[in-house]
Amino acid sequence: MSHPHPELKPPPNLPRDGLRVVGLGGLGEVGRNMTVFEHRGKLLIVDCGVLFPEEHQPGIDVILPDFTWIRDRLDSIVAIVLTHGHEDHIGGVPYLLRERPDIPVVGSKLTLALIEAKLKEHRIKPVLDEVTEGDRVPFGPFDLEFVAVNHSIPDGLAVAIRTSAGMVLHTGDFKMDQFPLDDRITDLRAFARLGEEGVDLFLTDSTNAEVPGFTMSERELSPAIETVFRTAPRRVIVSSFASHVHRIQQVLDAAQAHGRKVAFVGRSMVRNMGVARDLGYLKYPEGLVVPLEELERMKPDRMAIVCTGSQGEPLAALSRMANREHKIRIGEGDTVLMASSVIPGNENAISSVINGLTRWGAKVVHKGNAKVHVSGHASAGELAYCYNIVRPTNVMPVHGEWRHLKANAEIAIRTGVDPDRVVIAEDGVVVDLVKGRAKITGKVPAGNVYVDGQTVGGATETTLKDRRTLANEGVVTVLALVDADTGALTEPPDFLVRGFVASPESFEPAAGVVEKALARAAAEGIGEPHRLEQMITRELGRWAQRKFRRNPMIIAIVVDA
Amino acid sequence: MSHPHPELKPPPNLPRDGLRVVGLGGLGEVGRNMTVFEHRGKLLIVDCGVLFPEEHQPGIDVILPDFTWIRDRLDSIVAIVLTHGHEDHIGGVPYLLRERPDIPVVGSKLTLALIEAKLKEHRIKPVLDEVTEGDRVPFGPFDLEFVAVNHSIPDGLAVAIRTSAGMVLHTGDFKMDQFPLDDRITDLRAFARLGEEGVDLFLTDSTNAEVPGFTMSERELSPAIETVFRTAPRRVIVSSFASHVHRIQQVLDAAQAHGRKVAFVGRSMVRNMGVARDLGYLKYPEGLVVPLEELERMKPDRMAIVCTGSQGEPLAALSRMANREHKIRIGEGDTVLMASSVIPGNENAISSVINGLTRWGAKVVHKGNAKVHVSGHASAGELAYCYNIVRPTNVMPVHGEWRHLKANAEIAIRTGVDPDRVVIAEDGVVVDLVKGRAKITGKVPAGNVYVDGQTVGGATETTLKDRRTLANEGVVTVLALVDADTGALTEPPDFLVRGFVASPESFEPAAGVVEKALARAAAEGIGEPHRLEQMITRELGRWAQRKFRRNPMIIAIVVDA
Repeated sequence: MSHPHPELKPPPNLPRDGLRVVGLGGLGEVGRNMTVFEHRGKLLIVDCGVLFPEEHQPGIDVILPDFTWIRDRLDSIVAIVLTHGHEDHIGGVPYLLRERPDIPVVGSKLTLALIEAKLKEHRIKPVLDEVTEGDRVPFGPFDLEFVAVNHSIPDGLAVAIRTSAGMVLHTGDFKMDQFPLDDRITDLRAFARLGEEGVDLFLTDSTNAEVPGFTMSERELSPAIETVFRTAPRRVIVSSFASHVHRIQQVLDAAQAHGRKVAFVGRSMVRNMGVARDLGYLKYPEGLVVPLEELERMKPDRMAIVCTGSQGEPLAALSRMANREHKIRIGEGDTVLMASSVIPGNENAISSVINGLTRWGAKVVHKGNAKVHVSGHASAGELAYCYNIVRPTNVMPVHGEWRHLKANAEIAIRTGVDPDRVVIAEDGVVVDLVKGRAKITGKVPAGNVYVDGQTVGGATETTLKDRRTLANEGVVTVLALVDADTGALTEPPDFLVRGFVASPESFEPAAGVVEKALARAAAEGIGEPHRLEQMITRELGRWAQRKFRRNPMIIAIVVDA
Repeated sequence: MSHPHPELKPPPNLPRDGLRVVGLGGLGEVGRNMTVFEHRGKLLIVDCGVLFPEEHQPGIDVILPDFTWIRDRLDSIVAIVLTHGHEDHIGGVPYLLRERPDIPVVGSKLTLALIEAKLKEHRIKPVLDEVTEGDRVPFGPFDLEFVAVNHSIPDGLAVAIRTSAGMVLHTGDFKMDQFPLDDRITDLRAFARLGEEGVDLFLTDSTNAEVPGFTMSERELSPAIETVFRTAPRRVIVSSFASHVHRIQQVLDAAQAHGRKVAFVGRSMVRNMGVARDLGYLKYPEGLVVPLEELERMKPDRMAIVCTGSQGEPLAALSRMANREHKIRIGEGDTVLMASSVIPGNENAISSVINGLTRWGAKVVHKGNAKVHVSGHASAGELAYCYNIVRPTNVMPVHGEWRHLKANAEIAIRTGVDPDRVVIAEDGVVVDLVKGRAKITGKVPAGNVYVDGQTVGGATETTLKDRRTLANEGVVTVLALVDADTGALTEPPDFLVRGFVASPESFEPAAGVVEKALARAAAEGIGEPHRLEQMITRELGRWAQRKFRRNPMIIAIVVDA
């Protein structure tokens, strides 16, 4: 197995019959999945997603893959293949298409419908190329074959990429539910056939590689959902990911069985369920789903609401209900079913929603007290099946933090893959498949590109470092009016304090510090305001650290009076 | 069951034979546990802990209970009883003793040793009063009896409080491990005896009330710990809470059995284990534990390190090892055992430590892949036993968020407690036990008191709101030199930008906004700099929102030139 590569350099030229694989996202993190394949001068992209920020990245909306490496070769891109319609696989597409709008976007019917809706919001009209399982389509030197996979959104595809350097099989996100609601299982017969032909490089989903055993079937949630609908004395309110068509199908089935009508609440829920129904992925009888206004006229024990906010997002419907900021006013007897996972980092937000709902009298059924969620990803047991069926020559785990990639690599090795042919690569690490062997050959830029409001890439690591300082310490602004001739203060400096522990008054003793700094500057013949500001900032910082044991951001302004 | 009380007022006077109970912390949150009992003009305090901040409270070290209600009656306090030595039960004591240092501090031997060490750091010499299970001691009108309870730190005590208003039983934190390492079980015989006598109000630990079934025995971790010590090819590094004497006892036993020496690393680990050994709570043969320098001269497969940092704290030993900032340099073959829980909110930090360690080649054994942690709190099954043994007349769940208090209340009701006598109270809510009946009668102040560096209470909710704005949006400082006569700018305004997405240059077009604001002010005859600053701030804020879709903090400074 290959290991940390801090010292990697830009890669050498790719041999003519080589295939280059570079993950620009999703390797070393859960999100912004994007793999670029280079062969005979052409590029093929599989997925282009966004990553959601962590608490040390305040104010950031989403994080994009870094397009630097491909930016001057946009014309060489033959296609973007989207394996499925989740944000961490499609969310970055609008930003890539801004740079070249006519890149063909390839995917299944549902996936394309979701990306089309998203691109419409960005006012981009894409070139779409719909494919389905079993299709075989060439894009430049890449000969693609699509294979059905099961995931927590319908219509997922794995993609086999045949090139003169060998065949790659990329699973996308997948699991191996043997009894999915749509009967569309991950096509292991196709995996076997491709393995028979010879898979030279296998890229497979690491998300759940640390989880032992097998991921339960989506159908196994049915008893818990049924129980809620059977026993709830008044309204039932269900939150879920707005893309989880099968979860919501189960909810609709239970509502129908127990004589409740359903309203969808939340913009993305309404939009996605509309798309899913129009395309035939979500099935329900006419009249089961009604507008909220109509639902509200019914008796509480005939009502069900399906809404967004399962991750405790403060602006989503469920949080607003928990805070009594929503027109649906939670009360005694309401039952809330949070039919979703807890994404790491969202624990406190979700708990706060549960507390809020409980406080108003609702009974909350969630992952912690009932079987109301199964993962969308293959666990260790399923991955072992995959490796044994495909028997790849080389393996490159994708989609996960280092711990997940490593766990996935270890499963590959346990099934008999040569450890020297299992490559753990992080974002930007270049893996070349040459003469049937995958090797790390270098590294290309793969930083974080932050989307912040309207701005892409405007916020940098320095911006975030400043924000963390501002958040933890606050900011002190000091205004010093200085006599241009003597370099001395013309009046006591003015202190403005925001987000800092102490009052402006407590800075009054620091006037002497400013005075002394200016006196030293005058003695050294320094008069340039910018230099003076630096000196004041430094001295005042030391003073604050001594006095308050804190390090606020200090902004000094010197004005010649 | 009682419900949200937003409109509660200060309580009426307490009848002479009434007992007042006020949770100043721990009701509606996990942490800063503190219950105040008032009877015949005297106050008894049970526990005084700290709460750790969440991500929306940046820069805060810890949060204290609000002492406002008792501040003008400090002389009436007859004692502070500490049920056990965890931070969330003792961390606030130094701040209370600052206000009156001679309040008797009552607790078991280990608890007092830990609080004494802590008070020493605060340079406070307390009045200590050691008690043990079975002791019965009067403090003013409160007649206290102490009962052994089992928890994740040794020497925990429940306390029965007899008054002329009736008897209260407060469990502190506890669980019911039937085979604890020190054979000191929660004394259900005493609970039964007290129940027989008549428990009028039962305050019991809600932390795990939502968890069905029973908490596993600490001993059940032994196989997983054994496996690590038996199979690790090189060093074993164990992280745990520095107070978890029994967990570390198991680690020492395994090290001894497999011929490894042990070094303690991390200030609190070294200190606490010293205290625990001196007092006989931690037992190991001479020579098993050695200083780190000595350990480092041994062969890797003879080494074990027990360190702090199980919660991913950035300055603790384990995080520094994961980042290669510690002299212990993690490498291939090392095994790290994280023998602890994941406190909500710490998931990302802990995952980042696991990634770092894994990346350097270590195998990481943790709660997610092995049985290496059991909780310290009674689950729903154990709580049901308690209620059935004690058969209290009134119940007030303590220690938990609303969801936990509610779940605990429901268990009480299922065992037959009259729902009208189950009181869910949040911090500051006043519960009076009068004539054998507990009722909510009002509310006293119970805000957050923030410790921030050297400052207690200096950071307020406004400070935190400013910090969140600064963190998410950054700060823009604008300096406007204004002609005192005309009120117009004497030169273009200067923009300073920190933590904001856009460059200072991108603010140049905003010069016109400042100019216009000043012109309007001049027209309206406004010349006072503070008013001008307000006007500029408002106009510039609108401009930034239009241009960048962001709302930075704007600090305007107007100087008469």
